[in-house]
Amino acid sequence: MNSRLQKLRRLLAEQNLDAVLISSLQNITYLSNFSGFTTEDRDAYMLITKKKKYIFTHPIYREVAEQDFKEFTLVEYKRNNPFSLALKNIIEQEKINKLGFEAFDLTVCDYERLTGEINKRTLKSIDLVGELRIIKSHEEIHAIKKACELGDKTFTFICNLIKAGVTEKELAVEIEFFIKRNGADISFDPIVAFGQNASQPHHITNNTKLKGNNFILFDFGVKLNSYCSDMTRTIFFGKVTKEQSNLYHAVLNAQNTSVDYLKNKLLNKQPIHAPSIDQVGRDYISAQGYDPFNHSSHGIGLNVHESPHLYPTSTDIMADGMVFSIEPGTYQPGKYGIRIEDLFAIENNELIQLTKAPKNLLELL
Amino acid sequence: MNSRLQKLRRLLAEQNLDAVLISSLQNITYLSNFSGFTTEDRDAYMLITKKKKYIFTHPIYREVAEQDFKEFTLVEYKRNNPFSLALKNIIEQEKINKLGFEAFDLTVCDYERLTGEINKRTLKSIDLVGELRIIKSHEEIHAIKKACELGDKTFTFICNLIKAGVTEKELAVEIEFFIKRNGADISFDPIVAFGQNASQPHHITNNTKLKGNNFILFDFGVKLNSYCSDMTRTIFFGKVTKEQSNLYHAVLNAQNTSVDYLKNKLLNKQPIHAPSIDQVGRDYISAQGYDPFNHSSHGIGLNVHESPHLYPTSTDIMADGMVFSIEPGTYQPGKYGIRIEDLFAIENNELIQLTKAPKNLLELL
Repeated sequence: MNSRLQKLRRLLAEQNLDAVLISSLQNITYLSNFSGFTTEDRDAYMLITKKKKYIFTHPIYREVAEQDFKEFTLVEYKRNNPFSLALKNIIEQEKINKLGFEAFDLTVCDYERLTGEINKRTLKSIDLVGELRIIKSHEEIHAIKKACELGDKTFTFICNLIKAGVTEKELAVEIEFFIKRNGADISFDPIVAFGQNASQPHHITNNTKLKGNNFILFDFGVKLNSYCSDMTRTIFFGKVTKEQSNLYHAVLNAQNTSVDYLKNKLLNKQPIHAPSIDQVGRDYISAQGYDPFNHSSHGIGLNVHESPHLYPTSTDIMADGMVFSIEPGTYQPGKYGIRIEDLFAIENNELIQLTKAPKNLLELL
Repeated sequence: MNSRLQKLRRLLAEQNLDAVLISSLQNITYLSNFSGFTTEDRDAYMLITKKKKYIFTHPIYREVAEQDFKEFTLVEYKRNNPFSLALKNIIEQEKINKLGFEAFDLTVCDYERLTGEINKRTLKSIDLVGELRIIKSHEEIHAIKKACELGDKTFTFICNLIKAGVTEKELAVEIEFFIKRNGADISFDPIVAFGQNASQPHHITNNTKLKGNNFILFDFGVKLNSYCSDMTRTIFFGKVTKEQSNLYHAVLNAQNTSVDYLKNKLLNKQPIHAPSIDQVGRDYISAQGYDPFNHSSHGIGLNVHESPHLYPTSTDIMADGMVFSIEPGTYQPGKYGIRIEDLFAIENNELIQLTKAPKNLLELL
């Protein structure tokens, strides 16, 4: 934690800021290891100045704050001593002239309450912690790897529960229970989509019953010690046709194409423009005569979607310490959808695959 | 849904607005019955003008939008045709001069993107849908009642799993699974707190093992057809002492005092200032020589916490169609915490209790 704070204070100095106000819960977790606050009622704010660090919270979190924020100065806010006023007092005491804040997280109402007490010119929109989070330490990559390992086990578990008549929801609930029984949380609601339901990349898992000769798409993630995994597998219930097999392998080979492209670039120490990773996959699928995916791969860490951004308009350049998905797909509306997603990390200029569940076309009979 | 839109348009006219932009997911659900969007990436916005209604979403939700928003004009936004630009075009086409927006929901970044295209003077912060949601229809109260019924069943279920050595987390997971196996969702992460852990009103459920002669506090809610329930029960594992029994009954009688106060006010058709409901409970607990709770009861509906507000600084007046908790408690730091929470509705000037699980002091041996 201390090295993170040091780095953050270096960024503060670089940006000519006297302090930064952290409101995003994941950023609070990043700087404290504590993940118990909720978004309900703005449970907490963190303030990092050049020399001090503060945690602001409601009195109902007093015991939590005393236990988990020992090195922080605790400031309690209440309805009659609201956060904006408590912050104003510290700004005056510490002579803070320039304060960074997280415009991506604060609501317009939160901001208006703040600027009721604090001069707008003091405030500068910035995501300093996000800049740190884009590059993961070895320990963070290890934490994500551990989440991926439980994801792999979950995939094996759920494959054993597949039978005719089971519903998407039943399988989704079993995925969630398996993860939770193993002491972790889900990083998002599991998606289970049978046959044509998978043709919507954001299908809402429902009570559709499984019939034979259908693709089944699983997209789920584990959150373990605050770090997220994410994986997608598409398997077949029944015996595939030649066309279905071609389609599946177009997606699998698209992923391999992206992986090979990335490995080659790393080997040759060439800069890798983040969107190019999906683009080579899309190009491969198009070249096979199928429709390429219009969603994008993504960075992952404390959030299931975070930097680096791999979408077409991103300007991110891939670097050591980045963790991200590669998830090509193809969708035929009303017919079916196939997607394969794995997580990867770049460490010591090498590409490491974190999810390990098998990807050969699985036919369950 | 149509009567809700009519009411909303009446409010639009009263506020001299030409249209309102809805970004809060619960408000989108309220006006469409659709609850499948996520907060990830701002999946959707809704625009209600005097004559038309629009749903803005990503192309990946096209099939969903076509199925569940048949009466809406669908506008797709993409990274190269962002929402702010799509909205600007409609504002110009429809000659919208005054547009309400939800400042409690939009982030400062969202707002800055909007005002990159749209004149700030066009925008007015307002929560029109929230004004409607504070008063529930009979159908909405019925939906909450159904969620409460499943909550009551969950309480019976979980009482049967209590035994020495079981952990808080294990019981919390079982609560969640029971709710999900019954086709519903949780309205928040279930809280299970043994003994002194319950002395923190926002205890984070952990791996503490159950020992004898301990209070157990359960605080959990069901979300069924988008509507939330919420209940708290405190039971005893072992045989209570006289002191523990007195403490429990101080809380139970505090709740009864609040209920009697409310019933009496309704009977006499006197205005009821929302914070007074908790206040009579707090006064009762203080009079018994115990520390009263510093949290507050709350309105509930599509959100687990919503209007009416019952906290001390609220100016809300209770009215027909309101649904809310009454949840007194007392906490002795490092020792124990007791809280009892039920949901109530006011309908036809009568107080109706929606949660029905028993409240006599339960000793499990």
